Amino acid sequence: MKTILNPDRYFSSDAAIRDIARELYENVAALPLVCPHGHVDPRLFSDPNATFGSPADLFIIPDHYVTRMLYSQGIELQRLGIRELENSGNTNHPISNYPVSNHRTIWHFFCENFHLFRGTPSGIWLTHELSEVFGLDEKPSAANADRLFDLVTEKLASPDFSPRKLFERFNIEVLCTTDAATDTLDYHQAIRQSGWKGRILPTFRPDGVVNLDAPNWHANVNKLSEVSKIDVLDYASFIRALEQRRAYFKSKGATATDHAALTPATAELTPVEAEAIFQRALKGQSEPDDAPRFTAHMLMEMARMSIEDGLVMQLHPGSLRNHNEIIFRKFGLDKGADIPIQTEYTRNLLPLLNKYGNDPRLTLILFTLDETTYSRELAPLAGHYPALKLGPPWWFFDSLNGMARYFDQVMETAGVYNTTGFNDDTRAFCSIPARHDVWRRASANWLAGLVVRHIIDMEDARGMIQELAVGLAKRAYKL
Amino acid sequence: MKTILNPDRYFSSDAAIRDIARELYENVAALPLVCPHGHVDPRLFSDPNATFGSPADLFIIPDHYVTRMLYSQGIELQRLGIRELENSGNTNHPISNYPVSNHRTIWHFFCENFHLFRGTPSGIWLTHELSEVFGLDEKPSAANADRLFDLVTEKLASPDFSPRKLFERFNIEVLCTTDAATDTLDYHQAIRQSGWKGRILPTFRPDGVVNLDAPNWHANVNKLSEVSKIDVLDYASFIRALEQRRAYFKSKGATATDHAALTPATAELTPVEAEAIFQRALKGQSEPDDAPRFTAHMLMEMARMSIEDGLVMQLHPGSLRNHNEIIFRKFGLDKGADIPIQTEYTRNLLPLLNKYGNDPRLTLILFTLDETTYSRELAPLAGHYPALKLGPPWWFFDSLNGMARYFDQVMETAGVYNTTGFNDDTRAFCSIPARHDVWRRASANWLAGLVVRHIIDMEDARGMIQELAVGLAKRAYKL
Amino acid sequence: MKTILNPDRYFSSDAAIRDIARELYENVAALPLVCPHGHVDPRLFSDPNATFGSPADLFIIPDHYVTRMLYSQGIELQRLGIRELENSGNTNHPISNYPVSNHRTIWHFFCENFHLFRGTPSGIWLTHELSEVFGLDEKPSAANADRLFDLVTEKLASPDFSPRKLFERFNIEVLCTTDAATDTLDYHQAIRQSGWKGRILPTFRPDGVVNLDAPNWHANVNKLSEVSKIDVLDYASFIRALEQRRAYFKSKGATATDHAALTPATAELTPVEAEAIFQRALKGQSEPDDAPRFTAHMLMEMARMSIEDGLVMQLHPGSLRNHNEIIFRKFGLDKGADIPIQTEYTRNLLPLLNKYGNDPRLTLILFTLDETTYSRELAPLAGHYPALKLGPPWWFFDSLNGMARYFDQVMETAGVYNTTGFNDDTRAFCSIPARHDVWRRASANWLAGLVVRHIIDMEDARGMIQELAVGLAKRAYKL
Repeated sequence: MKTILNPDRYFSSDAAIRDIARELYENVAALPLVCPHGHVDPRLFSDPNATFGSPADLFIIPDHYVTRMLYSQGIELQRLGIRELENSGNTNHPISNYPVSNHRTIWHFFCENFHLFRGTPSGIWLTHELSEVFGLDEKPSAANADRLFDLVTEKLASPDFSPRKLFERFNIEVLCTTDAATDTLDYHQAIRQSGWKGRILPTFRPDGVVNLDAPNWHANVNKLSEVSKIDVLDYASFIRALEQRRAYFKSKGATATDHAALTPATAELTPVEAEAIFQRALKGQSEPDDAPRFTAHMLMEMARMSIEDGLVMQLHPGSLRNHNEIIFRKFGLDKGADIPIQTEYTRNLLPLLNKYGNDPRLTLILFTLDETTYSRELAPLAGHYPALKLGPPWWFFDSLNGMARYFDQVMETAGVYNTTGFNDDTRAFCSIPARHDVWRRASANWLAGLVVRHIIDMEDARGMIQELAVGLAKRAYKL
Repeated sequence: MKTILNPDRYFSSDAAIRDIARELYENVAALPLVCPHGHVDPRLFSDPNATFGSPADLFIIPDHYVTRMLYSQGIELQRLGIRELENSGNTNHPISNYPVSNHRTIWHFFCENFHLFRGTPSGIWLTHELSEVFGLDEKPSAANADRLFDLVTEKLASPDFSPRKLFERFNIEVLCTTDAATDTLDYHQAIRQSGWKGRILPTFRPDGVVNLDAPNWHANVNKLSEVSKIDVLDYASFIRALEQRRAYFKSKGATATDHAALTPATAELTPVEAEAIFQRALKGQSEPDDAPRFTAHMLMEMARMSIEDGLVMQLHPGSLRNHNEIIFRKFGLDKGADIPIQTEYTRNLLPLLNKYGNDPRLTLILFTLDETTYSRELAPLAGHYPALKLGPPWWFFDSLNGMARYFDQVMETAGVYNTTGFNDDTRAFCSIPARHDVWRRASANWLAGLVVRHIIDMEDARGMIQELAVGLAKRAYKL
Repeated sequence: MKTILNPDRYFSSDAAIRDIARELYENVAALPLVCPHGHVDPRLFSDPNATFGSPADLFIIPDHYVTRMLYSQGIELQRLGIRELENSGNTNHPISNYPVSNHRTIWHFFCENFHLFRGTPSGIWLTHELSEVFGLDEKPSAANADRLFDLVTEKLASPDFSPRKLFERFNIEVLCTTDAATDTLDYHQAIRQSGWKGRILPTFRPDGVVNLDAPNWHANVNKLSEVSKIDVLDYASFIRALEQRRAYFKSKGATATDHAALTPATAELTPVEAEAIFQRALKGQSEPDDAPRFTAHMLMEMARMSIEDGLVMQLHPGSLRNHNEIIFRKFGLDKGADIPIQTEYTRNLLPLLNKYGNDPRLTLILFTLDETTYSRELAPLAGHYPALKLGPPWWFFDSLNGMARYFDQVMETAGVYNTTGFNDDTRAFCSIPARHDVWRRASANWLAGLVVRHIIDMEDARGMIQELAVGLAKRAYKL
């Protein structure tokens, strides 16, 4: 069967660059995958008999990159297998009344519309998954939809396609999940106790309790009291409970925390202000500025705790979540309607960096959805502060062009060694090898471009490709 | 005569890319031109004996791309044939006292300074026009200025160079003009009645009555009453009059509306607020926020009407018009002093998209003069909302680099099928073939770059080039 | 010894582009260096026996590009030879207690960590300096650090490596320094009186007296009174003193002024407001808005004076200085912690450009640290206003990618002739040839890319490379 994955894919067509890129890539192509940040569900691995379900379960229904694109072209979400929330209310909208499709029909919609993914990262990942994971070297289409559905279904039924087996086949050295501060980490516990050797580590994500405007904040705080066994009655006990959870996560192997925020604003409250804001929140009497002020304060606190307990701190700001309120009310979170906003780092991070940025015990890894900040703010900041490092291109920018812009706009000023390699940041487990492969190829191609222009030599390039593929990520995340 | 238009112009010099680009381009080079948005004057076609005037009338005096560049280098506008407005007042400025040049002298200024257009889109278009339209394969210079003037003058006098003949020669399938809401469309009527087959359609542009701070707003509203035969006495009658005009435009072939606004802010007023603001405007007692609030509201109303009548809605925000007040007072609008400002879409469009963005009956085509929004805001929005599509690179970005950045920054996230192909957006009729040629070549070159890197295959690329050249525009604009 | 500076460095690896780039570059490679803006200390040239000190004095200690990168990776500034300020106070920080290293040890830190500069402009400049200035074609490393230190030390001791000798060897036609408004220009005077022929001109930089929040403003104003012999007692005498200093600078050869500001805001105060703000400043009673309002006003005044005295006006906005307060308090200014902020030009410059932008007697050269403004604001403004020109990529963007983005994003709209060629803007004298070489190569490569795509022809390109290398800078700065 002719492979549709060309061995020189994503490299420049200029032979001088391509040949060097290929050589560099070959140095790292077979290295284990280091996955320091992502959203894979640990339940896939805690149960040795877990399966991925149908082809639609694997490739379509949970993947908001895929469903948003189909939705943007007029295919309603119910037709893609997405169910309305209970109690979603009557949104009185013409799109409300479609029945949920069955999985073979969903697969058909996907295959018939595969042209929508031309030139997109999803197109690249899906093609890679079908080819490398399932051995299917065909472009999906209306004509082959049924056959592909049957072939993938058959493979998924085989024990070789269990999550654990694929984890091993993918050669994953370590996979970090993202877990609420209130998570008991039972699935992680179960993985360890099962004797299976796959290294899957939790990451401490306290957004649900730290952002006062998080959905279900009160319930989350109650859960925090319960799991920490510390009654959260005031700001001081809240902080103690968080410290308890961090220690618990660390004891279960966590090396990092992760924080989402609408903006990267940081600013310390006085103890009196913190207590007052926290009490208002407990009473359901928050004032309009309370939530952003508290988040800005808690980012400072999280940096302090990271200095004390050594957990690496990640910050993912700048996404306006649930932009489409109709979709949010009917279908819930993560339906492809989170839209980036302009983001400012220089002034927003000033308080945190002034207090903690010179401290070598802190590692703060920044991400952005605003590429204009790469050369203007992020690279100059990371090229100065010892505590600061830049994460790889995130979300929409985890793409060939996104990576090329990142290399071009970040590296000259920040230097490679103030960046942290790659992370796949995905909930689509089977796309992990594809994503790392794109990064390793893009890295090799970028370095080859520097070599042919005599900006670096091959000795430099060989060192840098190792760092980009695994070294930077392992060191930055203390893995 | 040696052509100065190389057949492989604008393609990569890398043979692998160039050969594929050429093949793709050849598939679409001869396709008819679909021109869904522009500013060509319909009078050129309503009178069968219309002419373009002198070479200066055709190439220089009305083209603010050309005159602004010459002005930036110290050549006063009067010397380029631009007349002061009557009653422009004494601006007491050293540039005020030049006499208006004659057309041969203007042509000389242009030819002597043709080096100023090196590497600019104007340089590309002008060279293409001289060569392809007039058969003159020489670079303008002081030495050949007189001869070129005579040659172009001679051609322009020939019946083969009438607007209608050139329309046919350019192989224009459809040309949409832009017309005030108060326009009677008499010229469009005359074109139809003349029996000439050229398809020229109006576009409904209500800025002059919808933006309360538009120059001559009161006169425009009076005219609106007159042409609609609805006395505009309050907000309700204003809305009825607009609906009447939309229906009238639609009856004359219009398929779209167009809207300019300083920002893309959208927000619905209550009926009471709308009435109060409208009454203040009628009385000349507008408050400072009235105009932007009313514009934001009317964009919502226009979306509602588009859902009802099916007219496609275009939005062109982000130009700070008439930045140079001296030039504006002396010479009026459109003298090259409209300067872009930073533009925000994610939050500004939230009200409109939440109300109408999920409705498949709406097509809202967005343009921008702020390229930073391509990857951060516009592509994620267009890649989600069924009603939203992105227009091609606009104005300063209707250029080879502008197109390359658009392809690189938009397509990975939005997908090609959420974009709308090309529109030339020009008042310079003879530049239309040049502009489409640049787009088709740039598209072919972009696709070839994807093919050689094995991101798409040739089957994909052949489909995409057809879409980019004509398909997307025809479907998006319902032509 | 094999050179590590490849003759085709920085050119595209595509032979079609490279061959043309090489030909274009060869036309200008040997042209004298025109240096219209920079920060070289004139004392290096006023004393015929001046030396550069040790290798660490030359390459490391004063170069904040180098020290910031080492600091970002955890090497404390004291270990790089940077001394704490007297009275810096106890900042209570773990980094405070390192002893200052000796120069050989500093050199070791630098060589051991030379990999940090891979792919950075500093890496390019340092490699060029070692090779071209010192004849050392080796990559610094722990292994060769001692030997390199000895070799550079030996060279620096030779009379051939005196600043004056290197100035001549570098073939510098003119070098402009940057000097406080209160500077007596004694060193410039001494250079002229010495009979040495090197052309070194002062530039008038009044930030220390014009920005009311400048460190030591009162002392600066006292010094202004002293050197101008005009008692600065009120706003009127302040203006007179500034005019006196401009005249003095002009009499010493200055052709330009330079202005830093956090934002490019411009706005005229009434005489009464100006006087009130100035009096408050004299009394140490400034209100919060006084400093930015006064700066915005003084930029207008500086434009007025430039029209009167013919000095070219430069504006460098958008750097948030001394972001890292611990580093600032301990070590002072210019330690690599100046971080760019988003910058707005369209509205901020409107008052100044409306008043003076049409006046051909003014040349205002704009710089930016916010690349998003290239295509959106700066190129459209420069492509319209006769008084406005754009300076080259500044600071972090004085790099191969920074230049490529500048060419791609500025030139299509502004045109080459509204730009001002290159300036090295450096205090590192020995890096000047490297920086011009990078610019000339980047220019040649950009033009070659236009030629191979048939956007310009070779005649155009040959004219443009001359302009970019020397012509534009000499004309814009009246040199």
